[in-house]
Amino acid sequence: MTSIRLGLVGVGKIARDQHLPSIAATAGIELVATASRSAGADGVASYRSLGEMLAGTELDAVALCTPPQVRHGMALEALEAGKHVLLEKPPGATLSEIDDLVAASGKTGVTLFATWHSRFSAATEPARRWLEGRTVERAEIVWKEDVRRWHPGQDWIWEPGGLGVFDPGINALSIATRILPEPFFLTGGELDTPENRQAPIAARLAFTDRNGLDLTADFDWRQKGPQTWDITAETSDGGRLHLSEGGKRLVIDGETVVTSEDAEYRDIYEHFVRLVREHRSDVDVSPLRHVADAFMLGRRCRTEPFHDDENAA
Amino acid sequence: MTSIRLGLVGVGKIARDQHLPSIAATAGIELVATASRSAGADGVASYRSLGEMLAGTELDAVALCTPPQVRHGMALEALEAGKHVLLEKPPGATLSEIDDLVAASGKTGVTLFATWHSRFSAATEPARRWLEGRTVERAEIVWKEDVRRWHPGQDWIWEPGGLGVFDPGINALSIATRILPEPFFLTGGELDTPENRQAPIAARLAFTDRNGLDLTADFDWRQKGPQTWDITAETSDGGRLHLSEGGKRLVIDGETVVTSEDAEYRDIYEHFVRLVREHRSDVDVSPLRHVADAFMLGRRCRTEPFHDDENAA
Repeated sequence: MTSIRLGLVGVGKIARDQHLPSIAATAGIELVATASRSAGADGVASYRSLGEMLAGTELDAVALCTPPQVRHGMALEALEAGKHVLLEKPPGATLSEIDDLVAASGKTGVTLFATWHSRFSAATEPARRWLEGRTVERAEIVWKEDVRRWHPGQDWIWEPGGLGVFDPGINALSIATRILPEPFFLTGGELDTPENRQAPIAARLAFTDRNGLDLTADFDWRQKGPQTWDITAETSDGGRLHLSEGGKRLVIDGETVVTSEDAEYRDIYEHFVRLVREHRSDVDVSPLRHVADAFMLGRRCRTEPFHDDENAA
Repeated sequence: MTSIRLGLVGVGKIARDQHLPSIAATAGIELVATASRSAGADGVASYRSLGEMLAGTELDAVALCTPPQVRHGMALEALEAGKHVLLEKPPGATLSEIDDLVAASGKTGVTLFATWHSRFSAATEPARRWLEGRTVERAEIVWKEDVRRWHPGQDWIWEPGGLGVFDPGINALSIATRILPEPFFLTGGELDTPENRQAPIAARLAFTDRNGLDLTADFDWRQKGPQTWDITAETSDGGRLHLSEGGKRLVIDGETVVTSEDAEYRDIYEHFVRLVREHRSDVDVSPLRHVADAFMLGRRCRTEPFHDDENAA
């Protein structure tokens, strides 16, 4: 079978750290071009824009690693050119534009893959399988990290559309929506927003499902020291699941069943190759829908100003 | 054909002003019970809760006129009891919970109808038909009313989930999503929020579609004097449509083609009867999705405090 000829748009940190090595390690797909204002990749054709790349190199697929605010236009351009499209998370700046992309991919019959990298963590699928068929009574998401460590000087994450603490929080929601056996929905929440910023620095959310699940999520970007990316769940048959380190480690009823190094992006590209071969798409907007619900239903609480340089405060 | 036996939950202003007279005027459906904490309706069984009503009277369908914050639980209870369900707008406090209701109605095979009353205004369907097949280049929504006149003393509309100026604005969005020939999506916006309130008092939104539509929406709750509920659209073939008075009046290329009194709720109940007979559902979340997108992507601007009593300011 011939390899999928891939062009990648947006050669930034996530592309260099994750996409490029994962593409290189995945059978059935090969990088043949990049489009980026800032950089290229060794040994492949380099363009300044998606349009130039589509005109200059024969491609089967395009991976978009650009910020969500400009993703729709590029995705539509690639889909209408008949290319399969892989989207970094989140798949767009709005829910409505993603609907439009799903329609466009349906029209041209190509694959659209909205990736959620945390769903490809080692523990997610084993956790989903263990919870399947069980009734979850209580669950807790605690996702706390230091924004200065992970997003130094990135002002755009505080702007409208940048999502603030939901940028990491959506990773937790992408796992929870995958592993919990019933769909859940927000009943209320609080979004702590620094008075000099647009996006929340912390959020406390309460969800339920049709069985009366008690699910809470505690997102905080002010965590010093050890970082916390934990999901716990208690089932009606007395079981207890603890997924930690963002999905690398899974403990069930006190026993460690998964502990693994990160292979998320390799699995993402393997899944993409499979989707293309099987003429399928994979677009689940539910993590972003929960974020939109939280912005719509959550109470805004003003907190102290955030300055990237702690000493400027 | 026997009439649909309907129970109505939430006998408030909208139920008395619109639902009860429209049900009485519609063939194929009859009111047999109400459930409400505050009031009943003449000549039918009256209960204090949905549960008591379901236990006490044989029903085929339930209409929910309660606030959106408590709608999901009641809708699920009715759907799981095998009743057809009609939802006042908006269909829920979150997008995610509506998905759950769609799944529940699918399981029991009953009709779920998420109403958008402005879609049943006299001008909406003629406007949709005229725009069908045309390319809209520019469109403008101007929806300006006096909150003190329409929502006197209703503090809940300013609370999280109350949606603020999007409570009327979603009516405009329900028309626009129906009449514009292509799906559109938000590119940016500003939400003016009084510093003593949670919900916006005004919003300016910009949308586009895959053809580069320039659509703006201007929602304002501070309008004195004449109230404005207008949508205009200019097409690439030089046509111009002007829908005004919230959908009662339609002018195309300078000629008045529709001017009509309000029959929205009668048409809603006729549509409900048809849906039930044809075993269909009608749930379009796109108006609420645009609102959620606006809360997620819009810039929050703080404005002066809002007091219901103007002299208190």
